Amino acid sequence: MITVDAARARILGALSATGAETVGLGQGWNRVLAAPVYARLTQPPADISAMDGFALRAADAAAGVKLRVIGAAPAGHPFPGVVGPHEAVRLFTGSVMPEGADAVLLQEDATATADGVTVHEAAQAGRHIRRAGQDFALGDLLIAAGRRLSARDIGLAAAGNHAWLAVHRAPRVAIMATGDEISLPGDPVGPGGIVSSNAHALAAFVAQAGGEPVILPIAGDRLEAIAEGADGARGADLLVTTGGASVGAHDLVGAGLAARGMVLDFWKIAMRPGKPLMFGTLGGMPVLGLPGNPVSAFVCAMLFLRPAIDRLSGLPGAAPVLVPGRLGAALKANDQREDYVRATWRDGVATPFAKQDSGMLRNLAHADVLIRRPPHQAALAVGDAVEVLVLG
Amino acid sequence: MITVDAARARILGALSATGAETVGLGQGWNRVLAAPVYARLTQPPADISAMDGFALRAADAAAGVKLRVIGAAPAGHPFPGVVGPHEAVRLFTGSVMPEGADAVLLQEDATATADGVTVHEAAQAGRHIRRAGQDFALGDLLIAAGRRLSARDIGLAAAGNHAWLAVHRAPRVAIMATGDEISLPGDPVGPGGIVSSNAHALAAFVAQAGGEPVILPIAGDRLEAIAEGADGARGADLLVTTGGASVGAHDLVGAGLAARGMVLDFWKIAMRPGKPLMFGTLGGMPVLGLPGNPVSAFVCAMLFLRPAIDRLSGLPGAAPVLVPGRLGAALKANDQREDYVRATWRDGVATPFAKQDSGMLRNLAHADVLIRRPPHQAALAVGDAVEVLVLG
Repeated sequence: MITVDAARARILGALSATGAETVGLGQGWNRVLAAPVYARLTQPPADISAMDGFALRAADAAAGVKLRVIGAAPAGHPFPGVVGPHEAVRLFTGSVMPEGADAVLLQEDATATADGVTVHEAAQAGRHIRRAGQDFALGDLLIAAGRRLSARDIGLAAAGNHAWLAVHRAPRVAIMATGDEISLPGDPVGPGGIVSSNAHALAAFVAQAGGEPVILPIAGDRLEAIAEGADGARGADLLVTTGGASVGAHDLVGAGLAARGMVLDFWKIAMRPGKPLMFGTLGGMPVLGLPGNPVSAFVCAMLFLRPAIDRLSGLPGAAPVLVPGRLGAALKANDQREDYVRATWRDGVATPFAKQDSGMLRNLAHADVLIRRPPHQAALAVGDAVEVLVLG
Repeated sequence: MITVDAARARILGALSATGAETVGLGQGWNRVLAAPVYARLTQPPADISAMDGFALRAADAAAGVKLRVIGAAPAGHPFPGVVGPHEAVRLFTGSVMPEGADAVLLQEDATATADGVTVHEAAQAGRHIRRAGQDFALGDLLIAAGRRLSARDIGLAAAGNHAWLAVHRAPRVAIMATGDEISLPGDPVGPGGIVSSNAHALAAFVAQAGGEPVILPIAGDRLEAIAEGADGARGADLLVTTGGASVGAHDLVGAGLAARGMVLDFWKIAMRPGKPLMFGTLGGMPVLGLPGNPVSAFVCAMLFLRPAIDRLSGLPGAAPVLVPGRLGAALKANDQREDYVRATWRDGVATPFAKQDSGMLRNLAHADVLIRRPPHQAALAVGDAVEVLVLG
């Protein structure tokens, strides 16, 4: 058995980012930038007005003075002339400041008439003017490579005049559920059988993490079925299996993949739920074997699959962020396994569910957080400090 | 001018959820459930083993005893017979408990031989058995309508034997940028012109919020161009415009939409950035007019568009969640407008950027949080308590 951190380090160490692809700006959101975005222009391109009003010379604009309006400069239509003494040009938010003017008189501080404008409040030189390049200048680095692009980043890339982005390809993650007892939702369920839930939950999880899920057909509990199933993952950046990972007599996943040449790295970690976690490499394709219990599978996905998808997507990949909180119900001492306890979360208080069985999907779906307990942690009382992983 | 909360209440009051559609389970993630999901079967369907081992009668299973193994029950293949005295059946995680057995002997507490199994540690009745219906029973409510579906919910719906889900249609949000000064990324930029960034940032924002963005062509600063642009939004659940919302001489959006019959609700709110926020209804379609400044547009999107998309998606829609923190740099007293200050966020400390100009997209993209300041808030010193809106 290896620790959670050691397992994650070994998984991440075996993974590298997908290659870059060119996508339209609209497809770039939530992808990881593969090449830096530099500004292709200066923004604003010239000194512009931040308000609606009049461009004029501050020296002229004392209260009570009336100025001659010699033109207008709507945004996108710069005034071609020069503002001279006792002259003004009508302008609007985003208008280019005309030559000769050094101040903006706000429209609420003025009265416009047919032939001119009367100043009610003196305008100050430079005020309400956005300077050329205030946001960024031609050639500035706008977004560094390796960043997952937010909606704001998309706006910034657009403003920098980029219609295309180089991003890492979304990692394709093949998901293979195994077991004679499972059937697809809606399909007939055999005696003592259950409906496959892991593959579908994991597919949504992969999509949420920015990957492209591919659900492979369910593989029955035969070596050849598992080996053939894995053949269907060809071209995937990662194969995720569920079930049969504990390498017991009926835990055929490892054996079935070994039949196709998988090199096993590890298959047992010191955590609960989720002890049987398998990792290996099959012909260059990494394989992550998750437990069959739905709660174990999901917790392992949070701890290992998410960082793996991040790494494949172009990010470093890291342990999930933990948030401090207080315990809402006592917990017994922990054993040698790192424990992830399903709990509700209200105002910083994490209250564990009374039943923590790793087969209970409903508890998991209704949990807000997982309380992380280090190995050998002593018993905890109500109000004790804990660290939690907030579920999305 | 109305307050931020009043504006949001009026927007939400004018919106209702989209209709339901049937989608495959795989399309259900992040959609809002329109009809409750009830369990179509009991889970587990029978008492099952939670471990690998042997099913037997606890009364027989004292340490040192040897039992006869009369068969095996791999998961999905229930043992058809009955376990009698001094008999055992090999089983595995997920195996149905055979009739007659009331205990599970763990395989690590036993030695299997060709003809039987020797008990090393006494098995307790009921231990390591998952009871029928422990997770849920036929007919149980698994997921209530009105919930945005997580990956775990998808797993739970699958386990409940649902291949299809009734979810609210993802709201279609048409986005129309306006202004003679803007051009599409990569297209030629006119003198004093800038590149359109709002529509692209907002499209990503809409997608992130679970909507379907439609970017309309840029509408120039002519009434007819704006009116025609709005015609292109037909069938949208919401039209979002950017720019020209302040209803000034060159703020033609309201006038252009009025030409098509828009009923204006309000167009001015007491907040910064973003005072010119317009809301109205055009032939049954709600219209949200965002400011043209990219920072203002984005902050207004966080405060109004996100709740609006939530409401259209089937959720109630609410003010964004605020998180407590400490201030990292002093702030002057606030005026009558609710203020959203761009800031970095490290270990609970929000440090405002020195420049808060609403035209500075780069600052916005690099911000981690917005510090919310109520109207008329007094000056704040380093270390004072603040509330922040964490940017995603």
